Order: sequence, then structure tokens, then C-alpha cells
Amino acid sequence: MTVKEIKTFELDPEAFIKDKVAEIREAVGNGCAVNALSGGVDSSVVTLLGHRALSDRLKTCFIDNALMREGEPEKVAGLFKSLGVPVQLLDAKAEFLAALKGITDPEEKREAVTQTFYKRVFGRLVRESGAKFLLQGTILTDIDETVAGIKRQHNVFEQLGIDPQEAFGYRILEPVVQLRKDGVRKVAKALGLPEGLYNRMPFPGPALAARVIGEATAERLETARKANAIVEQELESSGAFQYMAIVHQDRVTGMREGKREFGLQIEVRSWESVDARVAKPSRISFDVLEKLASRLTSEIPGVVSVTYNIASKPPSTMEAV
Amino acid sequence: MTVKEIKTFELDPEAFIKDKVAEIREAVGNGCAVNALSGGVDSSVVTLLGHRALSDRLKTCFIDNALMREGEPEKVAGLFKSLGVPVQLLDAKAEFLAALKGITDPEEKREAVTQTFYKRVFGRLVRESGAKFLLQGTILTDIDETVAGIKRQHNVFEQLGIDPQEAFGYRILEPVVQLRKDGVRKVAKALGLPEGLYNRMPFPGPALAARVIGEATAERLETARKANAIVEQELESSGAFQYMAIVHQDRVTGMREGKREFGLQIEVRSWESVDARVAKPSRISFDVLEKLASRLTSEIPGVVSVTYNIASKPPSTMEAV
Repeated sequence: MTVKEIKTFELDPEAFIKDKVAEIREAVGNGCAVNALSGGVDSSVVTLLGHRALSDRLKTCFIDNALMREGEPEKVAGLFKSLGVPVQLLDAKAEFLAALKGITDPEEKREAVTQTFYKRVFGRLVRESGAKFLLQGTILTDIDETVAGIKRQHNVFEQLGIDPQEAFGYRILEPVVQLRKDGVRKVAKALGLPEGLYNRMPFPGPALAARVIGEATAERLETARKANAIVEQELESSGAFQYMAIVHQDRVTGMREGKREFGLQIEVRSWESVDARVAKPSRISFDVLEKLASRLTSEIPGVVSVTYNIASKPPSTMEAV
Repeated sequence: MTVKEIKTFELDPEAFIKDKVAEIREAVGNGCAVNALSGGVDSSVVTLLGHRALSDRLKTCFIDNALMREGEPEKVAGLFKSLGVPVQLLDAKAEFLAALKGITDPEEKREAVTQTFYKRVFGRLVRESGAKFLLQGTILTDIDETVAGIKRQHNVFEQLGIDPQEAFGYRILEPVVQLRKDGVRKVAKALGLPEGLYNRMPFPGPALAARVIGEATAERLETARKANAIVEQELESSGAFQYMAIVHQDRVTGMREGKREFGLQIEVRSWESVDARVAKPSRISFDVLEKLASRLTSEIPGVVSVTYNIASKPPSTMEAV
């Protein structure tokens, strides 16, 4: 089963929305569907398409995994409430933090977040919902390098802990799978989603767990949350491709009130890039860099040192973890 | 016993040299003296004063502690050879590396370097030399915050592993103790030392061990050595107060030849300061910063990421360790 790409220049968003709403309606019939909303553009578009097609036969849930940015759960819930789409907020913070406990290796950290989401939290939700239809925000870029079609969908069931025998009754719907990111943005705009949502900066899968070097404890995630909020406030108007704060595990010497203090270091990165394949550090003025450092050291407990990335990608990557 | 300060503005370097040479000659008489040359301005001045006073009855040794900057042992030995001053090069690399093995705490690292120098390497040298006179480059700033006089000198003997009973026969001579750094520089100039030596940037006591976060192994010190050489080359003409490279212990994600590589991060710091009490990061142009990052990632194996310090002192300190 090959996926037929709809190129962005030939995409008619209104017609696309009409088609997809009809397809979802036809597929689900009188049944129920379930989906997870992350607040990103892909899952937001899928939520709105599903809601137009099924109204309250679509159960959308937003999972608070303890790795969200400052105020994000409230912002996403508020937005969909204002659009008339009911979203169930599921507090899974303890479950994710337990899964991340003691893990310092970046790959293992990613795996822990993915497994907790699929096998445990969302898998349980799907199984308990009774819904046989699962709406997913997969886009073409997600499957470019994997085997498309049936095999991939099998893997999803496996990840959800649904027996392939049983899985016979389940069906996964991927209404935006023919689009790439810019196509999804066009549809998001046509659906009336605010620009702040569909033009938002890329955010890594493991969320704030990727912004902490070493173990992602509740305390260290809170430091990363505050630091990223400050960096986003100060660099929002810069027009950079992506910017972030990373909490290091290394301790460095600092001083407070005349005494040596062994403290935290925050690394700020801001990237100039077209497609994330290659990137250069943004040439931010020292007035802004020093203001950033001053806010990070004065507003976040324990921070005594702040650095700014000056390497390019490659050999660096955008994220540190 | 109080030390009488000679203010820099009232210092006549030629008269000072004449006085100190006479004092050393009178104190040592027909005996022998020993001193350790680090290559810094204080110990270099003391070596020249001692040599003028005692000629070959002064035994000067340069201890290679494995923590020196690139080419430093050769440079210092070459300079003093050209000045006609014999310097014994003592290879104590293995002893220092053994003492640093497994130590990650900055305070313990400093202590290991100090103890190895005094109690083991230099202490042994003093005891075995038979010399009863020890020339030291103590300056007034070194004793400002400690108790001056006898008690302090007692501590030196203790550090050298010389029994206070025995120490009765020993005597410590501190020819530059009445001066501060700028006074020592004036004397260095008058003694004919090259400007590169007496105007050189401050370098921390534990040397490159202070430029490595975590364990200072031979391999990690070599990385710090290469990184500091590159930073010094690129920033030498900047006129900054102090600049350095720090090898982090944290590993960050990078990529080489299309593959993920879990690599090293180097932090560059460059400070603007008058007296090191407060300091701000140098506002280096991004052309220079990017060149630095490019050299550090391409010339040093394993380095995938480079950052630049943007915090001020306080709450940061100049050095990270």
C-alpha cells in the first residue's frame, strides 16, 4: 500500500477538509474513534477533522506527561474549548516520571517516553475506550524512511499492546498522511487554527526530557521548563528557526553572596535553518545574550552559569539529547 | 612579623633588584638554595634574582606535572637557557596523573595537585637536594587573607613534609613578598624577561586540571591542552583579560558522516575585567566565534559541540572548576 503524496502547491485545503471529513465519517460509520492531541499542528488538525466528521463520537485526550512546556496543557485545553471541541485532560505525570527514573542515556530516555505513551497510557486509554477507530496525525515525512502501509500499522498495534489477532477489529485512520508539514499548516489555517499553533517552532518528541542532560527528574524538568520559557520570551521576536535552553548535568563553580557555590549551567541554542538539515547559530546581539544570562541566573534557583551554542550543524545536532 | 608593602608607584626596579640580590647572597652565605620555576612571572623573577645572587649554588627545577599548556615546558626551558640560567626539567607526569585518578570534585582536584606538588615531588626534591634555603615567589596578594609571617612559613614546611624540628635548619626566602602583581611585572621587565612572560594571562594553580570538568585523565587533559592552544591563538590579539577552553564531562548528540555521534562539548570563556573581582563576557564577533567552533570541532577528535560563556561574574566565576 503506497501513500500518494499531495504536493503543497496543488493542495486545495477546503476540498481536502471536505474529502477527509467524508472519509472519516464513512470509515467510522456509527462507531467511535479516539485520538491523542499533543498540541502540535499535526494532531491538532486531525482532532478538528475528526470532530467535524464525528462530533462527540470522537474522544480526544490530551496527556500531561510532565514534559510539557510552561502553561502548555492549559493553553491547548483552552484553545480547543474555545473551538467547541471537548478534550479530556489526562494526568499521567507520575507514570512518565517513574519511567524516566534513573535513566541518563538519551536513546533510553526517548524509548522510555515512547513506550510509556504507547504501551501504557495511550494504549490503556484505547483499549478501555471501546473505540475501534484510532485517528493518528502521521505525516508523509514520518513514514519516508520506514516501510509504508500495513506493516507500519501493525507496528502501531503492537506498540499499543493490542494483540494482532484482536487488532483485526481495530482500524487506524491517518487523514494527513499524504501531506508534508507545510501542507498540514495550510489545512490548519483553513480550519481556523491560530497562527501561533500552526507556525510554532518544532519541539522534540520526548519534549522537555530532551532539554535535560542526564536524568529527567521532576525538579530538573522544572528547571528546563522555566529556562525554556525565558528563552522563548526573549527570542520570540528574533525570527530564528528554533531556540531552546538545555540544562546540563555538569556542575560548575559560581559565587553568591561572596561564597563559592557549585551550581547549574544552562546552555542556550538558537538556530538559523531552512529545513533543519544544516543550521548555523543565530547571530544574537550581546545585549540580548547578556539579558538572557542575567534572567536565567537570577530567576532560576541554582543557576550560576549560562552558555550560548556557537557550533554549526553538522557536526552538532539541533537538540543536545 | 608584618610584611611592608612596596607600592608600585614608589618601586625603583633597579634598586629593588640590587637590594634583593644582596639580601639573598647574605642570607645563603656559602650555602645552597633551591626553587621551583612554574613559568609564571613570580617564579621567573625569583629564579633570576636567585641566579644573580648565587649563580650555580641555586638549583632551579621545572616540574612537568602533565597539566601544562601546549609546548610550555619546552618554551620555559628554552627561555631560561637563552638567559644563561640552568633549569632542571623534572618529569613528574605519572605521579600527578596517578594522584588525580578517579577524582571528579573540583576542591579535591585542587588539593590533589597541591599535595602532589608539595608533599611528594617538590618536597622530595628539597629534602634530597641538601639545600637549606628555599626561594619562593610568594607575593603580597597571596598572604593578604592568611596570617602573615612565621605561622605561614611553618605551614610551608609542613606541606613539604619537613619535620618542624628539622625545619629549624631550613629557611624560606621570599624576595618579592612586598610586591603586588604589577610591581613584579615592573621588576621582570627590568630583569630583561620578555613581555610575553610578564604580561601573560593569569593561569589557574591546578593548571589544565582546572580546565576539565570531572576526572582529569591524560586523554582529557590532552583535549583541554589542544582546545586552550586554539582559543589562545584565536583570541590572543583580542586584548581580553583572560580566555580559556573548558572540556565538559556531559556528552551531547552530534553527527558525523550522517551518523549520530555522542560527543564532547568544549566551552569557551573570554573575560573583560580590571582586577578579576567582577567580569563580563567579551563581546567577540560571530565571525571569530564561528571560526573558533569550526577549528575546535575539526581539529580535536570527538568534539561535536562548542559553547561560549555569556554569564557575568558574579554569579559565575572566571574558571569553571
